[in-house]
Amino acid sequence: MEFKVEPFQIKAGRYKVALNTQDAKELGVRGGDRVQLKNHSYLTAIVETGDIISKGTVGVYQECCEKLGKVCPLMINIIPASRPSSIGFIKKMMDHQKLTQEEIFQIVQDIVRENLTEVELSAFVTTSYIYGLTADEIEWLTRAMIDTGEKIEFDTHPIMDKHSIGGVPGNKISLLVVPIVAANGLLIPKTSSRAITGAAGTADLMEVLAPVEFSTDEIKSITEKVGGIIAWGGATNIAPADDKLIRAEYPLSIDPRCQMLASIMAKKGAVGADCVVIDIPIGSGTKVPTMEDGKKLARDLIELGERLGMRVECAMTYGASPVGRTVGPAAEVKEAIKVLETMEGPNSLIEKSTALAGILLEMGGAAARGQGKEMAMETLRSGKAFTKLKEIIEAQGGNPNITHTDIKAGENRADLPSPADGYVIEFDNKRIVEIARIAGAPIDKGAGVWIHRKKGETVNKGDPLITIFADKSWKLTNALKSAEKDYPIIVEGMLLERVQTFRVL
Amino acid sequence: MEFKVEPFQIKAGRYKVALNTQDAKELGVRGGDRVQLKNHSYLTAIVETGDIISKGTVGVYQECCEKLGKVCPLMINIIPASRPSSIGFIKKMMDHQKLTQEEIFQIVQDIVRENLTEVELSAFVTTSYIYGLTADEIEWLTRAMIDTGEKIEFDTHPIMDKHSIGGVPGNKISLLVVPIVAANGLLIPKTSSRAITGAAGTADLMEVLAPVEFSTDEIKSITEKVGGIIAWGGATNIAPADDKLIRAEYPLSIDPRCQMLASIMAKKGAVGADCVVIDIPIGSGTKVPTMEDGKKLARDLIELGERLGMRVECAMTYGASPVGRTVGPAAEVKEAIKVLETMEGPNSLIEKSTALAGILLEMGGAAARGQGKEMAMETLRSGKAFTKLKEIIEAQGGNPNITHTDIKAGENRADLPSPADGYVIEFDNKRIVEIARIAGAPIDKGAGVWIHRKKGETVNKGDPLITIFADKSWKLTNALKSAEKDYPIIVEGMLLERVQTFRVL
Repeated sequence: MEFKVEPFQIKAGRYKVALNTQDAKELGVRGGDRVQLKNHSYLTAIVETGDIISKGTVGVYQECCEKLGKVCPLMINIIPASRPSSIGFIKKMMDHQKLTQEEIFQIVQDIVRENLTEVELSAFVTTSYIYGLTADEIEWLTRAMIDTGEKIEFDTHPIMDKHSIGGVPGNKISLLVVPIVAANGLLIPKTSSRAITGAAGTADLMEVLAPVEFSTDEIKSITEKVGGIIAWGGATNIAPADDKLIRAEYPLSIDPRCQMLASIMAKKGAVGADCVVIDIPIGSGTKVPTMEDGKKLARDLIELGERLGMRVECAMTYGASPVGRTVGPAAEVKEAIKVLETMEGPNSLIEKSTALAGILLEMGGAAARGQGKEMAMETLRSGKAFTKLKEIIEAQGGNPNITHTDIKAGENRADLPSPADGYVIEFDNKRIVEIARIAGAPIDKGAGVWIHRKKGETVNKGDPLITIFADKSWKLTNALKSAEKDYPIIVEGMLLERVQTFRVL
Repeated sequence: MEFKVEPFQIKAGRYKVALNTQDAKELGVRGGDRVQLKNHSYLTAIVETGDIISKGTVGVYQECCEKLGKVCPLMINIIPASRPSSIGFIKKMMDHQKLTQEEIFQIVQDIVRENLTEVELSAFVTTSYIYGLTADEIEWLTRAMIDTGEKIEFDTHPIMDKHSIGGVPGNKISLLVVPIVAANGLLIPKTSSRAITGAAGTADLMEVLAPVEFSTDEIKSITEKVGGIIAWGGATNIAPADDKLIRAEYPLSIDPRCQMLASIMAKKGAVGADCVVIDIPIGSGTKVPTMEDGKKLARDLIELGERLGMRVECAMTYGASPVGRTVGPAAEVKEAIKVLETMEGPNSLIEKSTALAGILLEMGGAAARGQGKEMAMETLRSGKAFTKLKEIIEAQGGNPNITHTDIKAGENRADLPSPADGYVIEFDNKRIVEIARIAGAPIDKGAGVWIHRKKGETVNKGDPLITIFADKSWKLTNALKSAEKDYPIIVEGMLLERVQTFRVL
């Protein structure tokens, strides 16, 4: 059928057209079906139906318009198109049948090309969550995620990389691990993410110090120049399927294990990593509640690495409490820079960073087996790590003359005082993150939480448990209200007091 | 945060607002998250993010605007809102845990109120497909589907009803069953559907004779007046969850058994049915391939009926071949009316209609056990059924003086000749439906297929296997091309001939 084209100046995120409900019936298609637009060439688009489109007119969203030519045509011929074959493969998964490598590649390619609707994508993610995938399928999924995106190929080897499974607040260790490794002559092209549900991702942190958006070519050349980089992966086209899967996983609050494995290893594979250390925080509130789970995850990661030709080592770390005493971009960076500059700072941060950097130094052959951690510590102590970070900051376009005193947390501040004398008997990571987010993290760089007391520490009534920072005073007010309503830190003998607090409110 | 309101004259199908990507970050929400709009009262809406919305502005889709007041406010305050609890219940299903009655009600209510996004709805449907539901859960799902929509309560009883599982083309039997039952003094308020993937639903058929869109009050009063009605369920608010579930089931080509059971029985429960006969067509190409499956489905339907206080009987019928010899709205109606008028017509249609009507006559106490079919046949033979159908047509606002000769199939016609002498050895229901749809069914009432030869029948080379009808000549051309390219009917000795046919093309 011939339709008058009405270009929509709206991005749909995919090739999409809108048809009048009657016209769609006439064509024999329903919302979510595909049609072929025939101009000079064919273009398949997903149909949405509605009554705002006049009969005989097709609403063409921006991506389609751009694909059809410099100028959107005035008239276009539309015919029904069949569904992408990957929907049949998703159905096959739902029927608990194994997929072939080609079928998995087809699904991933259709996800990357935005050929699947939300309903179809969600069916894939839900089924992956319920049934999981076999080791073969996970390998193929990982390879497909690598191959449907950009890749970096270095001329020198080994290439080192590091990943944290996440779920623990204040995990700023990449700011120390990357310069320690690079200062010892190894290449570490670290791509990282921004926080989705957290208070600050590594990319959010690094952005306090320097730009983080680089092309894969730039990532390669900066790494070759100064040994390391801390870039935002989202600015590249590395393993692009991952972000698109998150669009369905996030609303359901799920992270299917098979997709988590593939997502981690695809990003490492795409930057050409040879040796990878993976930080697995264990504890309630993290993604890995028990050591048992952690060991299983470690085995899966190591096996997947072997299949892909990467050496993987995993470090199980304490995740029930934040790393260091800060949560939120500027506060975390200040804490990390202070350690690099002065070696002064929380033990949890120094220990964890040097332990992980040490593993990489050993894997990369810079340190002898068993000597990695000490070498990492020495690199930190000597100031070489800080010098290297400054080089990296400069290479990324930031100010290399930074000191920890230059970094300012938000000017609006409020303490949450302890309502009792006693020991901290409960510490709720998730609430700390929530409070930092209400205060504005990660988008407001100055927003965050300074933690004065961790589990097992004593506190006097009236002393601050946490200090909340915010760039905007109204956000501080909201964060403080939230903290007062539901304390993130519970002090022994406090429960009775909490009732009083409620009465006062 | 305070936003300038930009009303969108677009229906989103749900409460939805669009925010600038930066503003969304500032608010701490992502696409698919919920926000509360605070005007005089609170309204929860789903967020979509994009760059076409200016910073500081919120795009408010039509449903939201209408809910906010007669005139959309100029400014509005927006705060993040939590996710509906039903998402947690869907997650629980994904973790293979049983749901409570309240949890299932909450999910169904959120589906009906459009509180769930496509991603969430798809997760529910996919999980239902994979794990199924327990008998308790199916009962609660059915009750929730009934209770979240309109209900009809009749003063007289019993109320009879009939349902066909579908999947067999040409199944026009409701046009005979309803008047036969009503002619014997029983009430039968039949709501039916339009074809989604078929060539003609019962509602599409009845629409050839009379209007089919009625409110529940009208359905009740017409049924009380003339004993029966054949209405389109989609025009009512009966079990509205069903249509919304189909939005996720259709793109995945799935029909989870638990939802199929609930959907059928909810529609019967909502019209107050006491006795229900269910036609289960068996055979390849139908929804129920084997007798084994059919018996299982029958037991499930009967059990669910008991739980809901309905007497259910199931009839397993032959479904590998169309009922009668016509497929497509006008052609099917013509065939059915001819039987009612003259008793002339295909045995398969007469036998099946009187068998199902007979069961209802016995269940409703109009016929003695074992006498139902004969009574149905007599009602047909005597012309009482036709008289009753005319009354129903008149009550629905159609022309009661209709005869079968008044009903015209499409003027554009083409035969598909047999390329060989021999027996029909294969008959492909799905291809017949496809050809009828390409010819324009169900939207073009005259479009359809006349079947000259069924399985096992002989044919001479050059004689027509089918005749295709269409209202529009270009659709006829497409349908004929499709039929010639891939024959719906295979005649013994034809395979060699097909090679020739391809050569000729």
